[in-house]
Amino acid sequence: MKFLSEDFLLDTTTAQKLYHEIAARLPIIDYHCHLDPREIAENVCFENLTHAWLSADHYKWRAMRMCGVPEDLITGNAPDKEKFLAYAACMPSLIGNPLYHWSHLELWRYCGIDEALTPETAEYIWEKSNVKLKSLPVRVIMEMANVEAICTTDDPISELTYHRRITEQGFQTKVLPAFRPDKALNIENGGWREYISALSAVSGVSITGIDALKEALLARMKAFEALGCRAADHGLTDIIFLHDAKKAETAFRKAMGGECPNNEEAEAFRTELLLFCGGEYAKRGWVMELHFGVLRNVNAAAFAALGTDVGYDIMGRPSRYIDELISLLNELERRGALPKTILFSLNPSDNAVLCALSGAFGERVQPGSAWWFNDTLSGMREHMKTYASMLPFGRFLGFLTDSRSFLSYTRHEYFRRLLCGMLGEMVEDGEYPNDMSSLKRLVADICYENVKRWFGF
Amino acid sequence: MKFLSEDFLLDTTTAQKLYHEIAARLPIIDYHCHLDPREIAENVCFENLTHAWLSADHYKWRAMRMCGVPEDLITGNAPDKEKFLAYAACMPSLIGNPLYHWSHLELWRYCGIDEALTPETAEYIWEKSNVKLKSLPVRVIMEMANVEAICTTDDPISELTYHRRITEQGFQTKVLPAFRPDKALNIENGGWREYISALSAVSGVSITGIDALKEALLARMKAFEALGCRAADHGLTDIIFLHDAKKAETAFRKAMGGECPNNEEAEAFRTELLLFCGGEYAKRGWVMELHFGVLRNVNAAAFAALGTDVGYDIMGRPSRYIDELISLLNELERRGALPKTILFSLNPSDNAVLCALSGAFGERVQPGSAWWFNDTLSGMREHMKTYASMLPFGRFLGFLTDSRSFLSYTRHEYFRRLLCGMLGEMVEDGEYPNDMSSLKRLVADICYENVKRWFGF
Amino acid sequence: MKFLSEDFLLDTTTAQKLYHEIAARLPIIDYHCHLDPREIAENVCFENLTHAWLSADHYKWRAMRMCGVPEDLITGNAPDKEKFLAYAACMPSLIGNPLYHWSHLELWRYCGIDEALTPETAEYIWEKSNVKLKSLPVRVIMEMANVEAICTTDDPISELTYHRRITEQGFQTKVLPAFRPDKALNIENGGWREYISALSAVSGVSITGIDALKEALLARMKAFEALGCRAADHGLTDIIFLHDAKKAETAFRKAMGGECPNNEEAEAFRTELLLFCGGEYAKRGWVMELHFGVLRNVNAAAFAALGTDVGYDIMGRPSRYIDELISLLNELERRGALPKTILFSLNPSDNAVLCALSGAFGERVQPGSAWWFNDTLSGMREHMKTYASMLPFGRFLGFLTDSRSFLSYTRHEYFRRLLCGMLGEMVEDGEYPNDMSSLKRLVADICYENVKRWFGF
Repeated sequence: MKFLSEDFLLDTTTAQKLYHEIAARLPIIDYHCHLDPREIAENVCFENLTHAWLSADHYKWRAMRMCGVPEDLITGNAPDKEKFLAYAACMPSLIGNPLYHWSHLELWRYCGIDEALTPETAEYIWEKSNVKLKSLPVRVIMEMANVEAICTTDDPISELTYHRRITEQGFQTKVLPAFRPDKALNIENGGWREYISALSAVSGVSITGIDALKEALLARMKAFEALGCRAADHGLTDIIFLHDAKKAETAFRKAMGGECPNNEEAEAFRTELLLFCGGEYAKRGWVMELHFGVLRNVNAAAFAALGTDVGYDIMGRPSRYIDELISLLNELERRGALPKTILFSLNPSDNAVLCALSGAFGERVQPGSAWWFNDTLSGMREHMKTYASMLPFGRFLGFLTDSRSFLSYTRHEYFRRLLCGMLGEMVEDGEYPNDMSSLKRLVADICYENVKRWFGF
Repeated sequence: MKFLSEDFLLDTTTAQKLYHEIAARLPIIDYHCHLDPREIAENVCFENLTHAWLSADHYKWRAMRMCGVPEDLITGNAPDKEKFLAYAACMPSLIGNPLYHWSHLELWRYCGIDEALTPETAEYIWEKSNVKLKSLPVRVIMEMANVEAICTTDDPISELTYHRRITEQGFQTKVLPAFRPDKALNIENGGWREYISALSAVSGVSITGIDALKEALLARMKAFEALGCRAADHGLTDIIFLHDAKKAETAFRKAMGGECPNNEEAEAFRTELLLFCGGEYAKRGWVMELHFGVLRNVNAAAFAALGTDVGYDIMGRPSRYIDELISLLNELERRGALPKTILFSLNPSDNAVLCALSGAFGERVQPGSAWWFNDTLSGMREHMKTYASMLPFGRFLGFLTDSRSFLSYTRHEYFRRLLCGMLGEMVEDGEYPNDMSSLKRLVADICYENVKRWFGF
Repeated sequence: MKFLSEDFLLDTTTAQKLYHEIAARLPIIDYHCHLDPREIAENVCFENLTHAWLSADHYKWRAMRMCGVPEDLITGNAPDKEKFLAYAACMPSLIGNPLYHWSHLELWRYCGIDEALTPETAEYIWEKSNVKLKSLPVRVIMEMANVEAICTTDDPISELTYHRRITEQGFQTKVLPAFRPDKALNIENGGWREYISALSAVSGVSITGIDALKEALLARMKAFEALGCRAADHGLTDIIFLHDAKKAETAFRKAMGGECPNNEEAEAFRTELLLFCGGEYAKRGWVMELHFGVLRNVNAAAFAALGTDVGYDIMGRPSRYIDELISLLNELERRGALPKTILFSLNPSDNAVLCALSGAFGERVQPGSAWWFNDTLSGMREHMKTYASMLPFGRFLGFLTDSRSFLSYTRHEYFRRLLCGMLGEMVEDGEYPNDMSSLKRLVADICYENVKRWFGF
């Protein structure tokens, strides 16, 4: 098969039918991403491919570093074009890497370029794509991708100014905030007190104790709700369940007094707030996403030089948090306060454990899709095989980009092609009847309907 | 390939030959199952498909819950037909799940139904299968499946009445008891004292200390032996090796006095008995099966409402017990008392570890086949690939159902098809010579001969 | 496809072209092996296949034990021919095992035998191969395999007499020593004091404290360097990072006084030396290989009877050492002393973790290839899929044998065929352009150029 043809990843006629007749036509709901709502409100336009691709993408930065590209051409001050050429020079090495497919799908879909990006074609692609990008402000990109709704990732202290503006502007894509109160929960981190001040200011609640803090968070949830919020998200290094109101209070008192709480106190505080938040999400029908198993900033020198989220996070040990996670879900359940919950671990060895665990909490708990380092052809394939083996695959909530890039909607295409390819293979291997009506229903559910129904978009 | 054709999972001519000429014709030995010997002695007949399928199958219950079916239609009091229709409605979602194949293989083999089960065909299949089931008392099912021998799972306090009756009745299938003394070992559980009384009564041994308890267990082993027992089985949350006779005694004294032993004492007691039992199994040439890595009843609310074994068990962390397992095997070896042993972990990440460990104890220790959550096409395939990569695959002990259902012998068919499919693929890829005599020997050994020889059936 | 044809593992025309036109013609650099330099210096010749295959190969010993072969025919005193026949009798069971392919590739490439080894052909193959082996002294084998350079594994106390002799003899293959100071670091092991005496003697340094020990090791590094050493290697049960100079000193003092240091002291000592060694490797541009995750000698009875390295080592728990490994790399980095480093864990669940970690230290840290129990078709395939998914695959350092056998260069062929097969599949599935110049570059880099460049051969 030709590289990047219309039937990319679709090697059976069943797969081709399912993709072209159903999957390709479905709108996109991207229930977790990191797009900047300001850029949508202002409908910004990328000056060139370096701005679109290389200004914030730690996947690409990692790859460039492993290819020996100097940091100046990655996060440094080198000219845009040189950075692009440095990335182009890495491309041939990226065989089998999702970056290879993502980059080419984006060039193809948005810029009409179907040549492979190599050092030889880099000049031509730089020129052609930059011209093209000028006619692609971000709203046009989202329209081209048929995006029905996205959830951005927002701090409770966000005023949600841009979400409000987008609503007023009447954009066809719903751009909804999602509630991510990590900074409120991470009481041991530097800057927590200042954060609490800011939260106090935006919520109008004087935060003198944990109850007041909960009140402030609640006020912000209501503000998020008013703008259509359907989801909240917690990024947790590990899940530790330490249910102890006294220790939580001590943590609060210490931290407000400028003293760092010890580990146990911090965990008790986090547990207390997680239980509170979970209950409030449940009341609102919000979905709670739990992301865990990340070791952050593991390269100390790079952290000192470049800060967070620049390509130095890795995955931790498999399943270390399984007992704690069970305790958390049970305590929420005991309170009648277990929200719809999606579980994401960064270690792919956890796929089976999380599928087994989800199945023990009925349809309210779901394993999320292959995340971050696992958002690859083989990672998604293994994840879906495990899901289907252990759970009703027709209930799978499907894909999300988790992306900072407006061009990344082609990742939904990538996922949908892979999904249709896998279903087609099962049919042509005689593992499922060639019943197009069931199959089309499965594709529609997994790519679109399940998420729409579950989140209530 | 058509769904569920005669060549299901057999996509090479080598595979087809191996399956149809050899595998399909071999008798079944199911060395570990949970069938009720009373139902065999009484040759019961299932009233309808709900009784056969949905009265005790926690796999199906889990799937139904994940599809949002209310509990009343699962374990509750809803009418049989409604329960069946609720399951049928889940079927299309179960693409890629072993339930999908198991259910269809059972309809096909026992009821002659080769239509796919969907909400549309459910009425027809309900009627047709119920008529058919009336002519299928359990012994007929076992004859149809060509079952040579099974090992049920029995408590030492079982009087083995039904096993004796079946022997007297002269049934062609050997129905042998297997020894599962978990209740005797789990000294920290509620009801242990009452259990010991019952054991005392059935064995005729007054149990006043650990030695007397061993004597009582030994008496029961002899009773099991008299009925042809060849296997014992231990279900262990984790394997903890704590060899300390004093602590074991303390545990016994405390528990007999109505006091709960602490963790260490309980583990010492369990270790003491495991070592004793292992030695006695070795003397008798019995096979010791160790099942571990299960977190039981993780949903507290469901446990309170429904009790154990209803679909709320999951797998634990990978390989946490590896050092303890090594100590246990070594201590048995040191005593000259290491029985033939089969290792089963519920976490599939342990496949490689258990294959490596088995290889360090020669042919006496074997990794078991893909268990429970892993008893799926991809789970079995991965397990067999790992086994073959690390050990002599021709020595593999093959499949067991671990099932509570009389219809589940088609899972042996499922396994055998997959096995022949994998061997055929290796041959047609040039990875093994097209030497039918070697290949047929491999198939016969893995599907039947190895188990027969190893257990001594 | 016929078994063992010229297109073994090459099922696309792209794969065939890549292998036959590029991969097959590249020289071999085997950067980590356990060959005995004396045998090269003396250009020994194997008397028969038992000497070549069964005198030191714990892979084969394990397989034979699992097939029930008595120890006398494995490591015992049985006649050579009987041992060979016992191995031949196991062969048909070894379907899917790398031993099956390794053995046949060796018979084919070195002895011109392309029949399958079975009990029936064993006599003939014994005769034919023994005749052939007489014309194959080890240097001829290495020439036939087009070996450009190898790194043996050498203790710092080695006088390197044979390396020097080989250099003087002018052999076309570079036979370089690699520095493996495990015995110096394992201070808690029996015989450490005697080892330190020997090190003192060979280095000419009186070792009265840790500084003197470092000086002695440095002297040996210089001796290794003079003979072209480019790599050092550490085999670590687990990686423990315990940076505490005082405890390290205590360990040294105790051990020199004949007292065993406690665990923490031993780990502090090991950390101290690891940091020192790493820094010295960095200065010399040497590559540091870290091998970890091994549980050694797990069968106590076999260890007592047969000693170490005879087939009783297994893998440990996944990723237990990840935090410690991060600390070690960071401390080396902080000192400006992080050498080029290759990470090998024995547990395949660690593939993803080590790829993620490597990517956080730029091109200086690399995951090694699938090691030992994972050096199998499926193990290498999974490893390469993970590598390619997470890192720039074009930078992969490729294969090493880790072998004690002169015949094992065919494992490079095995790897190269698999690699070309995987690349060909990606191209013919439309996942990479059919751009032969890029593809040939990838093959050359992964099979040869990357290692040559990175190690500086």
